[in-house]
Amino acid sequence: VTSGADYPGPVKRIVGVLGGMGPSATADFMAKVVARTPVETESDHLPIVVWSNPEIPDRTQALLGLGPSPVPAMTDGVRRLVAAGADTIAIPCNTAHAFLDELRSKTQVEFLDMIQATIATVRHDYPGARRVGILSTSGTRLAQLYARQCRQHGLLPIELSDADQARLVDPAIKAVKVGADLEDAATRIGQAALILARRDASVVVAGCTEIPLIAQQATGVLPVVDATDCLAAAVIETCAGTDRSAGWTGR
Amino acid sequence: VTSGADYPGPVKRIVGVLGGMGPSATADFMAKVVARTPVETESDHLPIVVWSNPEIPDRTQALLGLGPSPVPAMTDGVRRLVAAGADTIAIPCNTAHAFLDELRSKTQVEFLDMIQATIATVRHDYPGARRVGILSTSGTRLAQLYARQCRQHGLLPIELSDADQARLVDPAIKAVKVGADLEDAATRIGQAALILARRDASVVVAGCTEIPLIAQQATGVLPVVDATDCLAAAVIETCAGTDRSAGWTGR
Repeated sequence: VTSGADYPGPVKRIVGVLGGMGPSATADFMAKVVARTPVETESDHLPIVVWSNPEIPDRTQALLGLGPSPVPAMTDGVRRLVAAGADTIAIPCNTAHAFLDELRSKTQVEFLDMIQATIATVRHDYPGARRVGILSTSGTRLAQLYARQCRQHGLLPIELSDADQARLVDPAIKAVKVGADLEDAATRIGQAALILARRDASVVVAGCTEIPLIAQQATGVLPVVDATDCLAAAVIETCAGTDRSAGWTGR
Repeated sequence: VTSGADYPGPVKRIVGVLGGMGPSATADFMAKVVARTPVETESDHLPIVVWSNPEIPDRTQALLGLGPSPVPAMTDGVRRLVAAGADTIAIPCNTAHAFLDELRSKTQVEFLDMIQATIATVRHDYPGARRVGILSTSGTRLAQLYARQCRQHGLLPIELSDADQARLVDPAIKAVKVGADLEDAATRIGQAALILARRDASVVVAGCTEIPLIAQQATGVLPVVDATDCLAAAVIETCAGTDRSAGWTGR
């Protein structure tokens, strides 16, 4: 974008959000970035550009070999964000992180890593925790995004059985994506947290961006670490107090 | 944006959101568009691109002659949205609509009009209402955005005194913009609604996008028409069920 000579664009670094996976989670992420930004006046908030494309093919379906790759549509989204001026990209979809390396290889911009940010938060906020419950999509499970990140840091990931995943988590996530039966979805996530608690998890990761929207009952069972909020915190840490001249300029 | 040959972009028309005025209101608007979109599956949601620039100069200060024009920064935002692919622009800031004609003269894209959409909703949902309370910024009052729109449709706008505006509404709006003292802000908006009710308003327009976020007490006093939600409804009406080939192509 060539801005008009009369306005050079915002002073602060511009956060790009590759969203729509799903749309409610994207709105929730925006709200969490705003809530976490330390401000004294409106203009202290961060400039943010969001590309929310709900037509991006389903990440889990692709990982299960049941649908097309989301990478072309995600790459298109990154290009649009960069065209609008984004300096640093955040993706408020855990499952999409299975494609992060591929996305990095196709584009030239800095990405934040939600899975890393979330497990770093678990370690920081719950230093005594060893057994970490994970609630995520079937795609995130299959790609072992959290399992691998946990093991790299000496944590033991505790996951549901395939049957409990299919009975409790998959339908709850789908409900949020279409905005239906949210109370029933919250009950299912609460039941899933109870199963993880019985298996001695001391904390549970809401590792799908739909889950924090229906985690009310789960928080009564175990402390919940919200991956969306962890990514929002990473955005603030990376971008607040910076300006574009301090931006990342290559890779 | 030239999309990759492997992905032509979303099928549906792309909604551009010129936001950051303020950031909480922008997130609220996104959530309201998502909530209002009729969907059976995630991909039925609308593609949305949001440019949220909190550095856009304060609209009210400009209208009061106390600060620079926001138009250059708003024009920059529209250009970025169009660069990212936006077909139709919505601006979730009532006061910014004082500059809509100027913005239209400087750009080549379709804009939705929040003030029109809101008064149309008042007329549709409250056909017996004649005295319409207006809660808005000092800038919106000075520019007579709602007063003029009301009179054009035979409605009598009921506004606060300057003293009550300064005592109740201005500080409440400012509180939302920085995320502080929200309970006190909600009390002030409730008191403002009470004053309008005593002056025989039969409905009140939350005519600043910060106000719906603190309208809990006001809704106990009078029916509240939420301008943010009216703009979300206009987005759905204009864009849902369309595809880009049906997009607006000139002005």
